[in-house]
Amino acid sequence: MKAEIISIGTELLLGQITDTNASFLASKLPEIGIDLLWVTQVGDNLERMKECLGRARNRSDLVLTTGGLGPTEDDLTREAIAALMGEEPRVDPELEQGLREFFSRRGYQMPESNIKQATIIPSAQVIPNPRGTAPGWWVERDGKVIIAMPGPPSEMQRMWEKEVSQRLRQKIPEIILSRTLKTYLLAEAAVGELVSPYLSSTNPTLAVYAKPDGIQLRLTAKAENKERAAQMIAQLEERVRALLGDVIWGCDDETLESVVGALLTEKGLSLAAMESCTGGLLASTITDVPGSSNYFKGGLVAYTNEVKIYYGVDAALLERHGAISPEVACAMAEAARHRLGADIGVGITGVAGPDAVEGKPVGTVHIAIDNGKEKNLIRGTYPPLRHEVKRRATYHALFELRRTLLSVD
Amino acid sequence: MKAEIISIGTELLLGQITDTNASFLASKLPEIGIDLLWVTQVGDNLERMKECLGRARNRSDLVLTTGGLGPTEDDLTREAIAALMGEEPRVDPELEQGLREFFSRRGYQMPESNIKQATIIPSAQVIPNPRGTAPGWWVERDGKVIIAMPGPPSEMQRMWEKEVSQRLRQKIPEIILSRTLKTYLLAEAAVGELVSPYLSSTNPTLAVYAKPDGIQLRLTAKAENKERAAQMIAQLEERVRALLGDVIWGCDDETLESVVGALLTEKGLSLAAMESCTGGLLASTITDVPGSSNYFKGGLVAYTNEVKIYYGVDAALLERHGAISPEVACAMAEAARHRLGADIGVGITGVAGPDAVEGKPVGTVHIAIDNGKEKNLIRGTYPPLRHEVKRRATYHALFELRRTLLSVD
Repeated sequence: MKAEIISIGTELLLGQITDTNASFLASKLPEIGIDLLWVTQVGDNLERMKECLGRARNRSDLVLTTGGLGPTEDDLTREAIAALMGEEPRVDPELEQGLREFFSRRGYQMPESNIKQATIIPSAQVIPNPRGTAPGWWVERDGKVIIAMPGPPSEMQRMWEKEVSQRLRQKIPEIILSRTLKTYLLAEAAVGELVSPYLSSTNPTLAVYAKPDGIQLRLTAKAENKERAAQMIAQLEERVRALLGDVIWGCDDETLESVVGALLTEKGLSLAAMESCTGGLLASTITDVPGSSNYFKGGLVAYTNEVKIYYGVDAALLERHGAISPEVACAMAEAARHRLGADIGVGITGVAGPDAVEGKPVGTVHIAIDNGKEKNLIRGTYPPLRHEVKRRATYHALFELRRTLLSVD
Repeated sequence: MKAEIISIGTELLLGQITDTNASFLASKLPEIGIDLLWVTQVGDNLERMKECLGRARNRSDLVLTTGGLGPTEDDLTREAIAALMGEEPRVDPELEQGLREFFSRRGYQMPESNIKQATIIPSAQVIPNPRGTAPGWWVERDGKVIIAMPGPPSEMQRMWEKEVSQRLRQKIPEIILSRTLKTYLLAEAAVGELVSPYLSSTNPTLAVYAKPDGIQLRLTAKAENKERAAQMIAQLEERVRALLGDVIWGCDDETLESVVGALLTEKGLSLAAMESCTGGLLASTITDVPGSSNYFKGGLVAYTNEVKIYYGVDAALLERHGAISPEVACAMAEAARHRLGADIGVGITGVAGPDAVEGKPVGTVHIAIDNGKEKNLIRGTYPPLRHEVKRRATYHALFELRRTLLSVD
């Protein structure tokens, strides 16, 4: 079943609100096996709305609209659908009564302009909206369905969950299931090349995306039931994992910080960090995880050499190797571990920019992880932008922390 | 000038990401006098992309696309535009060289599939993208413009700000000038009420927006030249400032952290921080500013009482008042200042959640600022969500730091 969303409202086109209704619906449609092929935003203009709706009804089986069901003059969704279908809207006595009661329960008299919210056309059925005054319309004729829902997200989401999705589910024979695998270290094109044998597969499908915390792979299967779809995804996942190995660090809703947190918890280990160029971003990212106070002892942000020395880094070492060196990264990891009494220490030193330091270019970073027995040293070279250096070094450190934790007994 | 946005990517139609690029661009177009009439989302499908692009080019003067410029097989924006224009893409030697250098600077060899990012058609000019490997295309023929930008928001936004908006501005006869005033402390409705006399003005206009770092006011004037527009904005700004007073902390590109950094630099003062519930976010935010190493001595993230004590907070004080107390916030500010040899110390302690601590509900935060002579104590109560508590407490601390710095001689 091919579907299309039309988001209605001039405020969308002025950038005053972001169209979260479309992404909400888009994320729900695959679960019931509906393919979404287009999303269009259109302003409160009758002609343009009619044009959009007409095109949508021609090329799609299902058209979902949000917005434009309010009581004011610029709410024109009902008018546009009625015109498209060539049907005449009339006031529905039951709807009118419900609307008047809605207002009187709130102690108001209904403004007469609201009466348009009680209109309906012959091909439409009413979809109840207990959260607001705008009922939805389910318009079905000639095998095509248009569903008009209100714009306020809380009203729309309830209408979707309680009414629309259930009725739609009965029309669909197939279901769609997705799973996301998350990687770090490799560039998008490199991941794409490794998994290229599967990129042209049509069911299940495999797609590659670049995200701030690494490259992601999305596996999607269509099947007659959930079990079969899950099985198809599991088979593809096994092959993808065989190709990519340990650059895959997590899946679906997992984040690098949640994965590291879960491993620390599982192994009963604690963590401490001393950061220079990341300036606290590593500590802040680690503490984004609820419950991180159980394993994160603390962090030291050592922006100057004096503070590094004060925190326990050997002054002679700084003198000999410079602050931007693997030796100092190691000393920072060790000092964090010792000073804060943690099992594992992380040290990060590097050049966030805008200027080179000690002759080392912006983007040069040394990361050390000290688990008390051995030290893992990583050298990163990132795009020479302050935010990028901080972000990449932080994710890189978390990725390597995960590796270290996996290797600890 | 009629404009249209096409957002490209199957991940949009699966609801995995929300189309913030479209709302970003939609919010920027009015500033340069361009009317946006349609936004369409389309998947990574060559036929559907061509169809969308063709329709857009027929009905609009300007078509902005985002996404689909990556190196993999499903990135088809270049192909779709080339097909629409009936032109043949060819590899541009200069682009190819730049791309190979981009990879070699990062220590990788360029995957050969990336070469498609170095292609161009005769009607297109290259738009530089220093943040990524996908240059944009400015395609101009027969009085119509198609501008293809990359999908990652940081790359797209830079390309818009530094390249596209400036070139588009030259095509528009009237100039539009905007200025943003940034506030903290007051809620959106409160700011709106204070400036309500000016909200209905049509030129210059005044609009109120809620942003993560406070409520912003955008002043926009349309005029025949820049001087006249600047004068209109200056007059309105004077009136708005008279109504809002010192809740205004900055304007335009300023951030709370850049404003605090500039004041510290101007006054020759240094800063240190000890954070508990914000977990390093304050230090990370302060060090987002280039040159912050000149005034930021360092930060201590003290997640546990033991670490607070180790950093110099009196154990008896913790025992007597609990960790979530104004007394401990003060002791943290003082310890940070002393231990790290800074002029000003900040201490933050509070409950980030998910659970209450010491009987204090999630969202309770105490912030102390110690300038050596006096201590400024602030109590914040924020929405009980971990990210919100971290973010609000950080901005609140920066806002009060600015006030403290303004009062220091």
